[in-house]
Amino acid sequence: MGHELYERHRDTLDRALTAIRDRGYWSPYPENPKAYGEESASKGREAFEAYLGRRFPIDQPGAGGEVGDERSPYGVDLGVTYPEADPDALISAALAALPAWRDVGPATRAGVCLEILSRLNERAPEVAQAVMHTTGQAYGMAFQAGGPHAQDRGLEAIAYAYDEMTRTPPEAVWEKSMGKRGTLRMAKKYAVVPRGVALVIGCNTFPTWNSYPGLFASLVTGNPVIVKPHPRAILPLAITVAVAREALANAGFSPDLVSLAAEAPGGTLAKTLATRPEVRIIDYTGSTAFGEWLEANARQAQVHTEKAGVNTVVIDSTDDYQGMLGNLAFSLSLYSGQMCTTPQNLLVPREGIVADGARVPVDQFARDLAGAIEGLLGNPARAVALLGAIVNDGVLERIERAGAGLLGEVVLPSRQVDHPEFPPALVRTPVIVQVAAADREAYLSECFGPVSFLVTTDSTAASIELLRTTVREHGAITAGVYSTSEEVLSAAEEAAIDAGVALSCNLTDGVYVNQSAAFSDFHATGANPAANAALTDSAFVAARFRIVQSQRHLPD
Amino acid sequence: MGHELYERHRDTLDRALTAIRDRGYWSPYPENPKAYGEESASKGREAFEAYLGRRFPIDQPGAGGEVGDERSPYGVDLGVTYPEADPDALISAALAALPAWRDVGPATRAGVCLEILSRLNERAPEVAQAVMHTTGQAYGMAFQAGGPHAQDRGLEAIAYAYDEMTRTPPEAVWEKSMGKRGTLRMAKKYAVVPRGVALVIGCNTFPTWNSYPGLFASLVTGNPVIVKPHPRAILPLAITVAVAREALANAGFSPDLVSLAAEAPGGTLAKTLATRPEVRIIDYTGSTAFGEWLEANARQAQVHTEKAGVNTVVIDSTDDYQGMLGNLAFSLSLYSGQMCTTPQNLLVPREGIVADGARVPVDQFARDLAGAIEGLLGNPARAVALLGAIVNDGVLERIERAGAGLLGEVVLPSRQVDHPEFPPALVRTPVIVQVAAADREAYLSECFGPVSFLVTTDSTAASIELLRTTVREHGAITAGVYSTSEEVLSAAEEAAIDAGVALSCNLTDGVYVNQSAAFSDFHATGANPAANAALTDSAFVAARFRIVQSQRHLPD
Repeated sequence: MGHELYERHRDTLDRALTAIRDRGYWSPYPENPKAYGEESASKGREAFEAYLGRRFPIDQPGAGGEVGDERSPYGVDLGVTYPEADPDALISAALAALPAWRDVGPATRAGVCLEILSRLNERAPEVAQAVMHTTGQAYGMAFQAGGPHAQDRGLEAIAYAYDEMTRTPPEAVWEKSMGKRGTLRMAKKYAVVPRGVALVIGCNTFPTWNSYPGLFASLVTGNPVIVKPHPRAILPLAITVAVAREALANAGFSPDLVSLAAEAPGGTLAKTLATRPEVRIIDYTGSTAFGEWLEANARQAQVHTEKAGVNTVVIDSTDDYQGMLGNLAFSLSLYSGQMCTTPQNLLVPREGIVADGARVPVDQFARDLAGAIEGLLGNPARAVALLGAIVNDGVLERIERAGAGLLGEVVLPSRQVDHPEFPPALVRTPVIVQVAAADREAYLSECFGPVSFLVTTDSTAASIELLRTTVREHGAITAGVYSTSEEVLSAAEEAAIDAGVALSCNLTDGVYVNQSAAFSDFHATGANPAANAALTDSAFVAARFRIVQSQRHLPD
Repeated sequence: MGHELYERHRDTLDRALTAIRDRGYWSPYPENPKAYGEESASKGREAFEAYLGRRFPIDQPGAGGEVGDERSPYGVDLGVTYPEADPDALISAALAALPAWRDVGPATRAGVCLEILSRLNERAPEVAQAVMHTTGQAYGMAFQAGGPHAQDRGLEAIAYAYDEMTRTPPEAVWEKSMGKRGTLRMAKKYAVVPRGVALVIGCNTFPTWNSYPGLFASLVTGNPVIVKPHPRAILPLAITVAVAREALANAGFSPDLVSLAAEAPGGTLAKTLATRPEVRIIDYTGSTAFGEWLEANARQAQVHTEKAGVNTVVIDSTDDYQGMLGNLAFSLSLYSGQMCTTPQNLLVPREGIVADGARVPVDQFARDLAGAIEGLLGNPARAVALLGAIVNDGVLERIERAGAGLLGEVVLPSRQVDHPEFPPALVRTPVIVQVAAADREAYLSECFGPVSFLVTTDSTAASIELLRTTVREHGAITAGVYSTSEEVLSAAEEAAIDAGVALSCNLTDGVYVNQSAAFSDFHATGANPAANAALTDSAFVAARFRIVQSQRHLPD
């Protein structure tokens, strides 16, 4: 018998362990808001509104000043303040809490982590509001990606880590016959020992989804975790930390195993924490510049980074033109392209593509894709539910720059959509710019947001080669290909394997290249410059702990 | 059905997969030289002698000049020359060989790697001679550590890597019910993709044992491997590379998947290779200075290092004084203390220890330990079989310096032993120096070779604290404790866990702190400055490959 929380969540853990080996569809956390009860949405909104204009209720070491300057892309000034982080106090408290958490072993830690996820799941509607009003995601997406899907990713990390921690038995007997000299017998113990303090650095657009894997992978392997949210998306992680602290305390552990390191925009807290000698693991999602800074400077830590990339789709031919157009239109529109998985470059041969057996010139394809996007976003209510709001001024500037024709010919201009519920929200439809493959400067760096490039190449073979070099040199989280030719699909697969990027072939139905399903899809590969790790595989978890053994003689 | 070599070695692989989970005693490679046939020893010697004074028979890309300046610690000038490495040629050939090796998949790669080990096993007597005459190990040890034990470590790495590579299925169907909208079905493929070119940098004292884990872990995960031996211990790895190349070619793969990068002493080939962008994995054993250089400069690669450490034994009390003395004497004498696992510091309370119920003052313990060592090494034939020869001038200088009393009071001087078979061999018995805990400069850096320090502390509690800080600050591969008190043993275990070092308690019988059994003992922990990885755990292998997936719709 393990700890009560381990027993309570054991079935979920076992099922997750099976899921990561089968890699079929599975999730214990319903993604349909209706599954959470009729009143859950309004209760979630009430809970969210109760935070506004107040000090966030969290009691952790070193609290002195207050910080916080979050403004919702939907126009709400959150006015929530958080305790200003005191690195010394947070690190000391984390280290003080470490030994008891370490010594209790993998099963109990997994039980407690699953309890945290379970409580977060109950609070999904509240977290959804917090995600929506910090990221600009529409509510539906904020609910799913910020709640159950993020929880899935946390559980997936726990399952991988549990599997790795328990592959070495806690005890073993080593028995070696020495022939006439009898038998040597040793009793051995193997302890799972954490690295030290872990740091999670969150991003603006997916504060929970991108943070939960690192947070739970580090915590379940025994490392106390300091969570440093993006200054514009603190609330979702503050709620997460508060829930974790409460669950830890209820289970008899120090709440200081998880703490919040909030700061105002422009602060340097991430650098300060990341280079502390006690910090031995870092998980980061964000800009390439800071990711590379961490890799170069946080040398005492294992650094997992997800940075910028240039996602590419090779378009050669299709036998379902409307399906392809609809699928691409959805992918480019979802959350205004503010996803690390959104396609940026669509590569088409100069001579055009073949659709449903007929040749479609590039210009026609551009018009058809533009038409599909306009059709998809024609109804304002549906448009805002898909697009969400522009998360920050940087994205807006990129839309304006692309729309001004500075990067190439605009084949679909962006337009403002009025938000029926939140009039101040900045809602913009995607812009598509047409460029030639030679205009490398225009399209070969990440242009985060709803800006895509229709890149004309010499041929599909040239497109595939451009896919390969783009991923190798600039990184990518996703890649796609449309072709009716098995030869082209194989060549694209080979290029994707060479360059190290996940490939989606001929998506025309309700699966989109920018979605990533826990327990089945690896998010990023760690094999190209966009990320040095994948969410989640063994490598993501296996080095977060070490095995320390002790041995003694046993009687012959 | 897999490749023929996979089928041939499948049982061994399966048994190894069980062994790494059970962690009891197991080895498929007999450690007793007699198991290899009556004539094997003489045949091995003949094979070794056939290399002397000639070009080593290896045909690999870029061969131009010849290098080689190995001299046996037993007085033989080997006179073997090797092709001078041409980094461009070796790397190009490795990259050209990669795709076919990658695409054949984990099972076939494992089969071929096991075939290489099987062939190396047959050649253990020949490799033993090469190890003996480059490292100074006595023949018996060179046979075991350089042959079957090294092969065990290679197999262990293959088993861990195979387990990790196959935990994700090659294919999966993902099926998600969308309620009224039917079912989404996706066919997914998951490819195991290597990092790139791997580099193994060997050491002078255990050229095969310390290289095989990295070599086989990288190769089985699909990475071509360039083996860069220590300039004084090339031959054992040259034989290894030649055997691997032959086995690869016989199996229908490019021999350039494993190549030799030999150089003369004083060369900078390791630096050149380590910083090539194509090199993505490095395994290194050697000095802390160069290990830290690699960690700081080979930033494009995953760097696994085993560096210097200060191994410590806490001596409090024993109920088997003679057993303890005998065990320590053996540990300090084995291969003249030229092991990364040899105890360096023996911590005793100033008031003495308790042995078989009676107090033994420190001076008496020093005399008793000196007596045990002298007794063990009294017979010259037995002494040389245990001590082997001094590997290089650096070790000799440290013996002289310690023996001159420059580090503390000499309580056991080193003496020369005449080698009956190899008169020129430099054979020296251990030197023990007594110092106070305050003389930190004397004993708190690695003094590689047969030099140990008897360190007097305030108390056993102080000894345990010194163990903890020594390991944390200076690193260690091994630690030991002798005590009849469960409380002391527990405190030592806690300190070992805190500091991250494997602990051996009360070794008095035929198991020694400097031995490390594959499939049961983790060599190094990766948790203290002596090494950033352990041989072998999941973390050692899991990041040597990445998973790249591809997906398509399946009909509803």
